[in-house]
Amino acid sequence: MTPNKRAYKGCRDFLPAQMRVRDYLFNQMKKTADSFAYEAYDGPLLEEVDLYRAKSGEELINDQIYSFIDRGNREVAIRPEMTPTLARMVAGIHKQVAKPLRWYSIPNLMRYEKPQRGRVREHWQFNVDIFGAPTNLGEIEIINVIIHFFTSFGADASMFSLNLNDRRFVDAVFTQLLKLEKEDAYKLYKVLDKSKKISVEKLDTMISEIISEKTKQDLFKEYLALANFDDLVRFVDKNKLQEFCAEFYEFTTLLNELSLTKYVQYDPTIVRGLDYYTGIVFEIFDKHPDNNRAIAGGGAYANLLQIFNEAPLAGVGFGLGDVTLKDFLESHKLLPNLNKPKFDLFIAYTNTDDQKHSLELANKLRANHLNIETYLGKIKFNKIFKLAESKGYQFVAVIETRDGKTQIQIKDLTQNTQDYFDLTEYEKIIQLISKDK
Amino acid sequence: MTPNKRAYKGCRDFLPAQMRVRDYLFNQMKKTADSFAYEAYDGPLLEEVDLYRAKSGEELINDQIYSFIDRGNREVAIRPEMTPTLARMVAGIHKQVAKPLRWYSIPNLMRYEKPQRGRVREHWQFNVDIFGAPTNLGEIEIINVIIHFFTSFGADASMFSLNLNDRRFVDAVFTQLLKLEKEDAYKLYKVLDKSKKISVEKLDTMISEIISEKTKQDLFKEYLALANFDDLVRFVDKNKLQEFCAEFYEFTTLLNELSLTKYVQYDPTIVRGLDYYTGIVFEIFDKHPDNNRAIAGGGAYANLLQIFNEAPLAGVGFGLGDVTLKDFLESHKLLPNLNKPKFDLFIAYTNTDDQKHSLELANKLRANHLNIETYLGKIKFNKIFKLAESKGYQFVAVIETRDGKTQIQIKDLTQNTQDYFDLTEYEKIIQLISKDK
Repeated sequence: MTPNKRAYKGCRDFLPAQMRVRDYLFNQMKKTADSFAYEAYDGPLLEEVDLYRAKSGEELINDQIYSFIDRGNREVAIRPEMTPTLARMVAGIHKQVAKPLRWYSIPNLMRYEKPQRGRVREHWQFNVDIFGAPTNLGEIEIINVIIHFFTSFGADASMFSLNLNDRRFVDAVFTQLLKLEKEDAYKLYKVLDKSKKISVEKLDTMISEIISEKTKQDLFKEYLALANFDDLVRFVDKNKLQEFCAEFYEFTTLLNELSLTKYVQYDPTIVRGLDYYTGIVFEIFDKHPDNNRAIAGGGAYANLLQIFNEAPLAGVGFGLGDVTLKDFLESHKLLPNLNKPKFDLFIAYTNTDDQKHSLELANKLRANHLNIETYLGKIKFNKIFKLAESKGYQFVAVIETRDGKTQIQIKDLTQNTQDYFDLTEYEKIIQLISKDK
Repeated sequence: MTPNKRAYKGCRDFLPAQMRVRDYLFNQMKKTADSFAYEAYDGPLLEEVDLYRAKSGEELINDQIYSFIDRGNREVAIRPEMTPTLARMVAGIHKQVAKPLRWYSIPNLMRYEKPQRGRVREHWQFNVDIFGAPTNLGEIEIINVIIHFFTSFGADASMFSLNLNDRRFVDAVFTQLLKLEKEDAYKLYKVLDKSKKISVEKLDTMISEIISEKTKQDLFKEYLALANFDDLVRFVDKNKLQEFCAEFYEFTTLLNELSLTKYVQYDPTIVRGLDYYTGIVFEIFDKHPDNNRAIAGGGAYANLLQIFNEAPLAGVGFGLGDVTLKDFLESHKLLPNLNKPKFDLFIAYTNTDDQKHSLELANKLRANHLNIETYLGKIKFNKIFKLAESKGYQFVAVIETRDGKTQIQIKDLTQNTQDYFDLTEYEKIIQLISKDK
């Protein structure tokens, strides 16, 4: 039987044209991480399922994970997310190293998804985390990193917003104001999380199922209607919740000082993973009408190491998938033209006797860090420039020997100029080709 | 139960110190590929098992593969090698694209191995392949690529050799000279492959089990003793095998012209994967006494697309694992000092009022492509330089406000010099820090 030529369901083949885009995205990620002195890490493709079970409970394990029993009878899974691996690695070393830790990774992850726009089974995720930073300074840095990342593509405040909330404030609203028991608070968190995606009627029903008193229902709706920081401050003042917002207010002052507020929006519906985040939480929203959804999310979490029975460690981080990022950039036309690869010189010769010179010249230029394609075999002179142009080259070298004299013509296809060199003059050729680099 | 803090058996955690080494190796791979105008590709982590079965038969499937049944009842496997994925991708597009195709990848692969030195369950492999190149020019280019790669680390001919052979010549020896039937030829290939690892007595026994005539046994031993190209030529002449070596001879002439022969050695025991390679085959050997083994291997293959019932396509390629490469470089002390990360500037302040200036300065420098770490929180002046030095910084900025005037001191820890700037003079700071970049 002939095997299937298509990639496995929900996974992607990256031919060179797609790989150029992926490499471009990954390079931007690395540059941003470098800008903020974050260091790369990575973990194994497989982890024992107990690690995920400890962090996420059975739901994720059963529905979304690629798990199997290995030959040593271990229950293992292909990593569906990076956080448990990160927790395992940090738990192993955090007592021996100076803080803060600034770490990032771009792992491939697999989840059992029904493939659809923005959802694939294998994707890559840019994970950036800081551990052990002073209160608010870690939060500000992580938000600074993510805004730097988006603006590095040319994105501005008209294209995306960072919607944020503070779990300590939400907790205060739920417990101090609405006097909810833990179980009801949990249910109401779920309602918040869904509130933007359901109708007002449905929302009303869900609220009244959890909160019986009319005044408290109204209070919750008032909370839900908070549209910006000013609204928030009025709500906090009116309800005397100041003591629960001290750090959040200090945080917004820092945002202001760094001129980041234009990208940031208060959003009462942002809560993120319920058992994980403990402070500031945020999501990056795409403002494009065709693509209105969260591209990335993150926040502050204190209990990463809890699954290893270790004391709280202040952590702040975010995760961002390659597919949603690419959709965002494409919607806003922020992807550069990556239709063709970018190499430095295309070398061709018209007579087999010059093959040796072509290979020699190429190697000399490569030793000087230039990227060189040699045409393999002789080629007719009148075909060379068209071919090189179709491949995206600016510079072409044609080697020809006439009357015993071997000459290299360097053609600049952009400027439409040519220069001639002897075989020994490769340093001049390097200079000419490198002038615009 | 507390989950395990160790990585899954045979897999590695890459903490930043290990990741710097991995990133360095991968960057060298990318640079080499770029030098020769090879384009990156990647495929999915999972493939259907039928793809591997078609290429490798049941042996690999049963013993070494991580396979399982997915929820859609597909038998899938984590890729144990890249070639079947490459074949699938090339089969899908080769009729629509110009030749040659020059492709490379650095995928993570998983095999069920008993972990030991040089063998892990998850490793990364640098795969470089050219398709549709004229005879010998593809072979020469791939060998050029791999020698360029090793010498780019500073390795020379005293540290490694490229041992090669030609399957067409070996086939001629087996069928024309020894008159072996297909089945016996196959067995003798296996003997060749093992010949360096077993005793002379054992080898004799294995040979006499396959070849009964004494004269033919001696002929095979004569073949096995060929130590260089001159020996080969004498053997070919004596046994009138010239017609089977025409392309191989032409190939060695090209090696000579490119001054690559100093790295290359004829080796009659190199045969590589039996059902796959069809021409030149080679392995890179580490010459270090502690580490004497093959680091990489490859060759020419014509029937990559056979499993898709497609016509032969000339391919040449090699694969090289990250673990054996790192062992090689460490043995020969060719790894640069990667003990510390390399960022451009460490910014600190001694008074909380300057926190804002620190964050602002950092962002301005980042917008100019500098990599900046800010100390989070105020710090005592006399602690700053020691801390920055321990982190590997050359440049440190200290921001201090006195009598209402804010000043930035830039200290060059290598030169032991300092310069002072106003908050507005960040362009001068950029110039100063970038001068050695």
